[in-house]
Amino acid sequence: MYVAILGYGTVGAGVFDVLMKNKNIIAKRVGFPLDIKYVLDLRDFPGDPVEPYLTHDFRQIIEDPEVEIIVEVMGGIHPAYEFTKEALETGRSVCTSNKELVAVHGAEFVEIARSRKINFLFEASVGGGIPVIRQLIRSITADEVEEVCGILNGTTNYMMTMMRETGASFEDALKDAQAKGFAERNPAADIEGHDACRKIAILTSLAYARQVDYEDIYTEGIVGITDIDVLYAKAMKHGIKLLGRSYLKDGLVYAIVAPYMIRKKNPLYPVNGVYNAIMVRGNMLGDVVCYGMGAGKLPTASAVVSDVIDAAKHRHVNIPILWEREKMVLGARDDIENKFFVRVPIAEAAKAREIFPIAKEISILECESSEFAFVTQVMTEKEFREKAANLTVINRIRYEI
Amino acid sequence: MYVAILGYGTVGAGVFDVLMKNKNIIAKRVGFPLDIKYVLDLRDFPGDPVEPYLTHDFRQIIEDPEVEIIVEVMGGIHPAYEFTKEALETGRSVCTSNKELVAVHGAEFVEIARSRKINFLFEASVGGGIPVIRQLIRSITADEVEEVCGILNGTTNYMMTMMRETGASFEDALKDAQAKGFAERNPAADIEGHDACRKIAILTSLAYARQVDYEDIYTEGIVGITDIDVLYAKAMKHGIKLLGRSYLKDGLVYAIVAPYMIRKKNPLYPVNGVYNAIMVRGNMLGDVVCYGMGAGKLPTASAVVSDVIDAAKHRHVNIPILWEREKMVLGARDDIENKFFVRVPIAEAAKAREIFPIAKEISILECESSEFAFVTQVMTEKEFREKAANLTVINRIRYEI
Repeated sequence: MYVAILGYGTVGAGVFDVLMKNKNIIAKRVGFPLDIKYVLDLRDFPGDPVEPYLTHDFRQIIEDPEVEIIVEVMGGIHPAYEFTKEALETGRSVCTSNKELVAVHGAEFVEIARSRKINFLFEASVGGGIPVIRQLIRSITADEVEEVCGILNGTTNYMMTMMRETGASFEDALKDAQAKGFAERNPAADIEGHDACRKIAILTSLAYARQVDYEDIYTEGIVGITDIDVLYAKAMKHGIKLLGRSYLKDGLVYAIVAPYMIRKKNPLYPVNGVYNAIMVRGNMLGDVVCYGMGAGKLPTASAVVSDVIDAAKHRHVNIPILWEREKMVLGARDDIENKFFVRVPIAEAAKAREIFPIAKEISILECESSEFAFVTQVMTEKEFREKAANLTVINRIRYEI
Repeated sequence: MYVAILGYGTVGAGVFDVLMKNKNIIAKRVGFPLDIKYVLDLRDFPGDPVEPYLTHDFRQIIEDPEVEIIVEVMGGIHPAYEFTKEALETGRSVCTSNKELVAVHGAEFVEIARSRKINFLFEASVGGGIPVIRQLIRSITADEVEEVCGILNGTTNYMMTMMRETGASFEDALKDAQAKGFAERNPAADIEGHDACRKIAILTSLAYARQVDYEDIYTEGIVGITDIDVLYAKAMKHGIKLLGRSYLKDGLVYAIVAPYMIRKKNPLYPVNGVYNAIMVRGNMLGDVVCYGMGAGKLPTASAVVSDVIDAAKHRHVNIPILWEREKMVLGARDDIENKFFVRVPIAEAAKAREIFPIAKEISILECESSEFAFVTQVMTEKEFREKAANLTVINRIRYEI
């Protein structure tokens, strides 16, 4: 059975490596060998093992009837969308790591795959090597999903870990992440939360079998987090993590991406560095947390290849994925409930105590003469906003309930 | 489609509840409703919702052609073995939580199910609600498994957590676990490690697609762990956990069940109470850790029902599971490598320093005048045993490499 890989970037090269290095074990699991026939890339790679497989022309791939599985690891929407659609419509299963493509067009591709008795699979689009998509759609099937909550972006988790461990400023942590290759030169997608937002949109769509548009999810990145916030978190023995969350309440699904202060006993607390972790809460199961390398060449490639193996084992059989194209209307952002960690000038302490129902007060040496900091009781986003409008808020971070 | 449940104990009652409470969501995921037709139990349950379904006679179930899926949650080998075999041979899929049955007869049942185009599924036999079996056989398929390591027994983990948090003795922790219903009146299977042993036998069989007999796995329980050991662990900021481990080295698979001292940064370290966690290391993927309620009525039942759903969705289709009946010869126990934490009388300190390659020495206030305690370098079980024979070892605990 022949496979073509679209894109020889980091993940594409990883997929090439995994298919080559684990060839025998994969053949045993599939029942027959999987061979790479083409790798599409605009560049040449003289001397690279990929050379004999390289083509610059997608038509060569799509017109070769021997190609039954296409791996799309180019990223971006165009031409990934057109290539994927044509591949599916000509009866090829497609496996992708492209979260943007999946978040926007997943439901459409799932539908085409169903109608053609092939497969559109996207395990690697969320959580890199962590098999969270299969967990949601194939393991946690006896439960109503009450909540999905995860550390879905390794770059920002690396930065938050560094700020925590070294006291670095946000800017220094970002520079370090860029120097180590974890953050892009333009880091907006990571630090503004857009990457995590696409991922929680995909997970929420799968948990509730309906299209969730990522534009509808309130998203706040880590750009507002300072080293002073981290000092407060340390003083409380808490961590600050960028979370993607969605939960079901009274028949409505709410979703948000934002930094949260979490307690030491939260299972996501010890997840540091470029690791990702995802908690799924079922109404029968309780919490299941999965944790692993959320990015990186080989972990992501391993997840892509596990999909290739599934596609090969289900040659003319569609693996059912419930994901209707009809859009789900999310619960209003204003109604999302949180506690809040809040910092105001010390002169406003009395006023803050009057306005907010306060769960606890915190003081750190560095700011004890200048700031009043506290954690509120649980309140809605709207209530918080209205109350906070009466104060000079230095910063506020959501705080796990 | 009709389901019969064999056994209305804790898990059986949970399966009944999950199928009833999540009936609508399950019907949506399967594509048609799943109805309970019989529940087999020798007892009567007057007034219980199970009453209309209750039968005392297995023949009634097996002779009813409407029953397509049988849930075996009786536990023990007999008559679970005979019932399961007859169910499979008459074309019914069987879903079980019975780890003993799976460890001993899993390969045989997998083979029958394959030949009859039905399914023998056993997600709940390891790790309760944690979907580790699917992860091993259906998600981590692109990788060679290098290691499986888990906290596989909630009772002992509860006890170790209690000893750690309260300073309780082993005996008091056991009494408390019994009072809370976590430990049986006869706790041998848990505290001597047999339960964890059956589970790592199943996981190892699946990771390497061959039969691993649990009798071949060296198994040591937590019965030798004292409150003094826990004090040492605390002094080193380590934890003591009963681990089931298997790993691949130079083409041989090694397996062991024993308490280990693990470091704070080990992902299993924060797993406390009745929680279970399982780490799988793939050669491409790195480590994936899954964590959740490893036992309990509803989590275990949720896992059983997820198998029922899989069986229903694969009505005349066998989900391939690679598990040959041919027995795998494990690497010799003597060759397993660990560090060791060792306590000897203070009078033997000089001798111990001479005999052992020591990585670090530890002293606690309570024993500083009576004991010498240290952690060795990595050595084989055999090397350790030979060296330790020259000393009066008060206790020794394996120590993660």
